[in-house]
Amino acid sequence: MVREILDLVGDKWTLYIIAALKEGPVRFNEMRRRIDGISQRMLTINLRGLERDGLVKRTLFPTIPPRVDYELTEMGGTLLAPVMALVTWANSNQENIRGARVRYDAS
Amino acid sequence: MVREILDLVGDKWTLYIIAALKEGPVRFNEMRRRIDGISQRMLTINLRGLERDGLVKRTLFPTIPPRVDYELTEMGGTLLAPVMALVTWANSNQENIRGARVRYDAS
Repeated sequence: MVREILDLVGDKWTLYIIAALKEGPVRFNEMRRRIDGISQRMLTINLRGLERDGLVKRTLFPTIPPRVDYELTEMGGTLLAPVMALVTWANSNQENIRGARVRYDAS
Repeated sequence: MVREILDLVGDKWTLYIIAALKEGPVRFNEMRRRIDGISQRMLTINLRGLERDGLVKRTLFPTIPPRVDYELTEMGGTLLAPVMALVTWANSNQENIRGARVRYDAS
């Protein structure tokens, strides 16, 4: 079972969705804009999965057209710290990795 | 570029390989045993990628048959903390997620 959860959190789209929700509720289309390269279908599937897992809450507003907001649940919020730690790691190591790739390719 | 690195660290096989190397050098076949479901080809590709990125070091021992050890580099070691934070999160939340799924499926 924990392997299954790791497959979930070890998925890049999960990481980007959790990070995109860190400041509070976001509409579907706004999330699509923020997450480069994710298709409508992939975002829909991932959001439904995260909702089922209790990490994301979906709120439908009866406006015309209807508005749907997504936000982190309390449990979803506890995933932010490890996710943002990965984002911070990526930010601070991208130059080191770029250098390592140049050296590897030249070797 | 940082998106590219996040695609790397947001990949489940990367997570499992980094975690499998947390205690020190491991041989290829031993790693395959530890990482459930990874194919020889996928492990080879991922290890070569991590070596190129400067996160994993490969050591060839001229024994017969030749022995190959993989271990985290210093930079690879700095990725352990965020990776293990995700593993810890998964361990402590698997029951909550299981419960959320039961409720979602019943709704």
